Formats: sequence, C-alpha cells, structure tokens
Amino acid sequence: MSEPAPATTVGATPGDWRQIEPTPLPVTLSAAKDAFHDRGFHGTSIRDIAARAGVSLPTLYYHHENKQGILVALLEAGMNSVLGRVRAAIADATTPTEQLSNAIEAIVLHMTADLELASVARELRYLDHDNPHRQHYVGMRTEVEDLLDDILRRGIASCDFHVDGDARELLRYLLGACQEVTTWYHPSGARSPAQVAASYAATSLRAVGAGPTTNV
Amino acid sequence: MSEPAPATTVGATPGDWRQIEPTPLPVTLSAAKDAFHDRGFHGTSIRDIAARAGVSLPTLYYHHENKQGILVALLEAGMNSVLGRVRAAIADATTPTEQLSNAIEAIVLHMTADLELASVARELRYLDHDNPHRQHYVGMRTEVEDLLDDILRRGIASCDFHVDGDARELLRYLLGACQEVTTWYHPSGARSPAQVAASYAATSLRAVGAGPTTNV
Repeated sequence: MSEPAPATTVGATPGDWRQIEPTPLPVTLSAAKDAFHDRGFHGTSIRDIAARAGVSLPTLYYHHENKQGILVALLEAGMNSVLGRVRAAIADATTPTEQLSNAIEAIVLHMTADLELASVARELRYLDHDNPHRQHYVGMRTEVEDLLDDILRRGIASCDFHVDGDARELLRYLLGACQEVTTWYHPSGARSPAQVAASYAATSLRAVGAGPTTNV
Repeated sequence: MSEPAPATTVGATPGDWRQIEPTPLPVTLSAAKDAFHDRGFHGTSIRDIAARAGVSLPTLYYHHENKQGILVALLEAGMNSVLGRVRAAIADATTPTEQLSNAIEAIVLHMTADLELASVARELRYLDHDNPHRQHYVGMRTEVEDLLDDILRRGIASCDFHVDGDARELLRYLLGACQEVTTWYHPSGARSPAQVAASYAATSLRAVGAGPTTNV
C-alpha cells in the first residue's frame, strides 16, 4: 500500500474533459468515498474508513484531522473534477448551443465516471457550517452554476434558446436532472457514460428550446 | 398534545391534487421528518425523535417498533401523497401533453408543499433490504414511474412528443429534475410552489419536444 498523497493534490483539472476514469484518490479517501456512498456521512465512523483502507487509526489521523476533514477533501476532489471538466468543455465550443451541450455532457460524465465521488456532494449538508473550507467549496459550486447561467443568458439573448420564465430556475432544472444521475445509474447497466451524457445533453437542448447541434 | 394516530392512516390520497398543505402526520412522525431532514437517518437517534416530539421513549415505542419502522411510515406517507396527486392529475387531463404537464406539476407541488416529507425519499437507501415494507414502497414508486412512462410512450407514438433516444432515460431526466427541487427550494423564497410547478411543467414539455398547452 502506498502512502496517501496530501489531500490538496487530488482532483486536479482533467486534461481531457471527456475522459471517464475515476478521479485518482489516496487509499484513505477512496475508502471513505465508498463508505460514505454506502452508509452516508453519519452512518460511517472513522474506524470504518480505516478498516476499509487497511490502515491504522494513527495513520488515518496523520493525514486527516477528523471525519469532517475527510469529507472536505472528498467534496473538493469531486468539485475540482466537475469544475475542470465544465471549464474545458465550454472552452471546447463556440455557440451557446454547443457550449450548453458540452457542459451538460461534461457534468453527466462526471456523475457516471465516478458515481461514488459525485454522490459525496449530497453529504455537504453534514459539513459544519463554520468549517473554513465550506466557503471555498460553495464558491467552486457557484462557479459551475454561473458558467451554465451565463450560457443560458447568452443563448436566450441571441435567440438560440427559446424559454419562458426564470433562467435561474431553468438552470436548477438542468442541474437537478444531471445530479440525480447518481441515484439511478449503474456502471454494469446497458448504457455507457458517453451514451447517457449524450442523451442528457440532447434533452437539455430541447428543454431550453434549442435544436440539437451536429455534434450531439 | 394529541396521541399519535396509527401510522397506517397517514398520507391518504389528497382530494385536490393541487393543494399545497403539508401532509398531516402524527406528532412523532412529524418530529422524525424534521429530524431526518436536518441530520439524515443515521444522524438521528430514536431519543432525538422523542425529544423533538415531546414524548417519552415508551410512548414512541408504543407506536413504532424502531427507527426503521418510523422511516417506513414516513416513506409511505410521502409516496402515498405523490402517487395520489399524480393519479388525480393525470385523470384530470386528456392528451399526453396535458397529462404530462399535470403530472410534473403534481410532483413538484408534492416536493415544494412538504419539503421535509419529500426529502425522506432520499433515506430509502438506509431502509433494510429485507424490510417487508420495502417491496410495497418500491412498488408504489414504480407505479408513479410507470404512469409517467406510459404518457411518454403514448405521446411519442401520437407524435405529440418529439424525442430521440430511450424513453426510460428521458423519464429519469424529468423525475430527476423534479426530485432535486427539494435540495434548493425554500418556502421563504420568491417563488411559490405553484410558480415552480408551472415552470417545471413548461420546461418538461419542451424537454419532450412538445409545445406548451393552454393551461400551463
């Protein structure tokens, strides 16, 4: 077993936003990710994580202050991954239609390529409200939302998108559909991450009143 | 404080599918609902629930075998509510377009009218897999999905809806967007349950390639 890398190095921006390898994690965080996915934050003890990782409690505490610290590291790894993908996916397109399609595809690839890591986002409600890392995490999440919101507003202004109602609520709708992928997707099922991502991108374009682009 | 009613009477089918009153619950279940919403199933102890409800542990155990039994009662109350709404909403319309619009509206009203109860659905993963009530709950959830799936298939066959790809995945998309409403909606915010429900119905019609109906 290799020694866990510092938590701050995990979840670097992926070079290829369409890659579907799980985010590389130190063994303790990988164990915690699986434990939180199976039992939730409150259902998982620090001993459970150490046992799954095959490390002693002192080793675990050497790398992580406590269970909150582990949650922070996983939340940030997941958010770094999705933010990196979304930035690259948007930069890889020109029109609002192509950018929205790419961004949704990137988010769904994030959800399907590493279900357990993507699911950790649900445990944010158990991160202490005065945890100093919370603001940083929420800031990154807001950046993802703002990137999408900007595409929506530009697409509406340019008449590429045809919607009524509130753009922010439309954004919630699209992001909600993507977020829920973690609750039903199984890697062993009939659909590949790329298939689900392409289908969600196409549905999202219809939802904003855009026609599909040639690269969907 | 009145004595809690038996759990089997809660969550009756609503007479008016557009009503936005929270589902009436016995005091112990209402306390458990709030506790699960704040701290999750594993973060809540049976003592927490008794303390919130202002009842003794023996009183709580008189009505509920254990925490799993309380979770079952809440899951079933929520599912009864949404299933009753969806059935009534579909019966209240004729065409696939109107039926889909009504059904999405009904689901979002369920999510927004009683956020805490709707959020309990997320705790299903903590219901023991051999719990005899699990199959009943999942059966009701499947009925909701099948009702929507049937509308989608009829709408596609009649060319009211214009989609490519898999109808079942489209259903996951729509239901996912609705389910996630519980994670961002706040009753104290600017949008009423009726406004969010109407907006989600309109977006869903676009997502399936249908135009809005006159009653949206």
